[in-house]
Amino acid sequence: MTRFAERRNKLRRTIRKSGVDGMLVTNEVNVTYLTGFTGDSTYLLLTADAAIVLSDTRYDEQLERECGEMERMIHGTPVTLDQQVAKAAAKNKVSTLAFESCSVSHRAFLQLGDSLSGVELAPTSDIVLHQREIKDKTEVAEIREAVRLAEKTFAVIMAQMTGDQTELEIAANIEHQIRRFGGRGCSFAPIVGVGPNAALPHYSPGDTPISAAPFVLIDWGAQSAGGYMSDLTRVLVTAKISPKLERIYGVVLRAQEQAIAKIRPGAKMGDIDAAARKVITKAGHAKHFGHGLGHGFGLEIHEQPRLSPTQDRELKAGMVVTVEPGIYLPGWGGVRIEDDILVTRSGHEVLTHVSKDLADCIV
Amino acid sequence: MTRFAERRNKLRRTIRKSGVDGMLVTNEVNVTYLTGFTGDSTYLLLTADAAIVLSDTRYDEQLERECGEMERMIHGTPVTLDQQVAKAAAKNKVSTLAFESCSVSHRAFLQLGDSLSGVELAPTSDIVLHQREIKDKTEVAEIREAVRLAEKTFAVIMAQMTGDQTELEIAANIEHQIRRFGGRGCSFAPIVGVGPNAALPHYSPGDTPISAAPFVLIDWGAQSAGGYMSDLTRVLVTAKISPKLERIYGVVLRAQEQAIAKIRPGAKMGDIDAAARKVITKAGHAKHFGHGLGHGFGLEIHEQPRLSPTQDRELKAGMVVTVEPGIYLPGWGGVRIEDDILVTRSGHEVLTHVSKDLADCIV
Repeated sequence: MTRFAERRNKLRRTIRKSGVDGMLVTNEVNVTYLTGFTGDSTYLLLTADAAIVLSDTRYDEQLERECGEMERMIHGTPVTLDQQVAKAAAKNKVSTLAFESCSVSHRAFLQLGDSLSGVELAPTSDIVLHQREIKDKTEVAEIREAVRLAEKTFAVIMAQMTGDQTELEIAANIEHQIRRFGGRGCSFAPIVGVGPNAALPHYSPGDTPISAAPFVLIDWGAQSAGGYMSDLTRVLVTAKISPKLERIYGVVLRAQEQAIAKIRPGAKMGDIDAAARKVITKAGHAKHFGHGLGHGFGLEIHEQPRLSPTQDRELKAGMVVTVEPGIYLPGWGGVRIEDDILVTRSGHEVLTHVSKDLADCIV
Repeated sequence: MTRFAERRNKLRRTIRKSGVDGMLVTNEVNVTYLTGFTGDSTYLLLTADAAIVLSDTRYDEQLERECGEMERMIHGTPVTLDQQVAKAAAKNKVSTLAFESCSVSHRAFLQLGDSLSGVELAPTSDIVLHQREIKDKTEVAEIREAVRLAEKTFAVIMAQMTGDQTELEIAANIEHQIRRFGGRGCSFAPIVGVGPNAALPHYSPGDTPISAAPFVLIDWGAQSAGGYMSDLTRVLVTAKISPKLERIYGVVLRAQEQAIAKIRPGAKMGDIDAAARKVITKAGHAKHFGHGLGHGFGLEIHEQPRLSPTQDRELKAGMVVTVEPGIYLPGWGGVRIEDDILVTRSGHEVLTHVSKDLADCIV
């Protein structure tokens, strides 16, 4: 059985419990996760006995290549995807159909309802997203590869760095190097923020040269050839380390270490966040850490679960999360340190290995 | 007045006619178009008198930079964006609020309704997307720049092409060159399909070397520094031109020329598609042209309008569309020729200038 068939069977067990005859998977990434198909505009209809991909003529050949073993229904103008869903539902005697309430727009929901007369639509949220939280073996291997690509790239970036390079040039070079090493590219647009620009957690790189301030924050990740992500942040020092930078960096690093130490199956997500937040609060910077501590990732860069103050769910073995506390001081800059952590049966494994010793971060 | 304020005023005139007190803009790109803000997780609430951006603490500084002249409401945990919308609606006495039915998920719609008790939610679709169809002067200038970047890049790709380069290497080089010329990057993942791979309209580049077949299809575009797109396709010939390639290419080129010739304000979109389809059908390849003729683009690579058989709307001055007929023969390959066309008051202007003479496409 392919890993995709295994994932579909796992999903079948979940939806069977909810008393529906089948599920319509519309979220593009969920379709990829469950079928291997990497295009768009394609749905998966899953019932106890059937698994049908519904797509249009543009994707017929790609579907044959990527999931040729699956049943598929291909339509072309003027037949619509919704009409195909109705046909497939009727053929498979589906009277109650779960759908993904978060991925179907308000309008698409109304249109689907019109096409599916006689079928009851049951909203579900996050069923597949929750399944995707727990990475299987193939996925963990892909994430390890994405980390490897990101780390090899970062070594090149550090080695090639000069003071007259701009943030944008560094960002472009990150993508270029990831591709040279065989990755698909960046897992998100890299953040390269020199000095005060690093005070914006979601800064977009611009024309500021590296030499304009004594440090630069780089938040980057790679996408593996198989489509999985990694996500890291480091601060590189380009001049003498100021006492202020050393102090802020020390607080963020301690916060991160405290949080990582608590990661194990059964630990509450909010408690991991709290462990880091406590250190930052104690240092007087509670107001300067305005985002959650971390997030899951995999086929997407932001996935469930979230490590944030409001999460009371428990971590489980197989989850992969970032841990990325930060302190942001408007006008001065920001420090964030981010690593990727796999929850193992006995605790955790830090998947990323770039040194966090400030002395190793001097370029 | 900024161009963003002008766009908001134009939108105000449209929504005033629909009898609502205000509109909630949730689509990220629409927010960018109407405010200049380039981040995410941010809404715009527009009423006759007010224009408020609603966002969270992460984006406070970026909003100040990008649209500092606008009123903004910033929230942080545990306040939600929906709660802020409710507060802003109450403050501005909104009792009927239009929302974007295509961009709000079924679940988000239910949640918004819960937060906005006492406010009637009126679904709208495509109001801003239809406004975005007609490009203003700044936008046309940005698109010209995106075309310029794409064309300069293509000249480098042609000049540097060797038989041992793979599709993926060419795709990576396209992005690299666009950035070297000052663009943000590709406007979409380039399609580079050698020989039979070109038979897939949405092929993803792989390890096939250029020398594996006598021609390669390249579908690429650039994103300008200001965020606007271009979109072109050419076929490059890497060996002797076969009679079959010459014939197919000729049909596609005639189809494209016939369609472009018909572009002017008042022309029906479906008629433009029909003009190209007629040529391809006459040549016996109706079945091998399975997609619509073209699409609008701007801040996104696929926008309204669509040039397809089912569209009976009329073209208007200021629209910018691709015209991209194709013939796809499984096992052999495909030919698509794509240019970007501006609808002008008196007819049209072809914005793209890369030669379509097959003799000029030999590398």
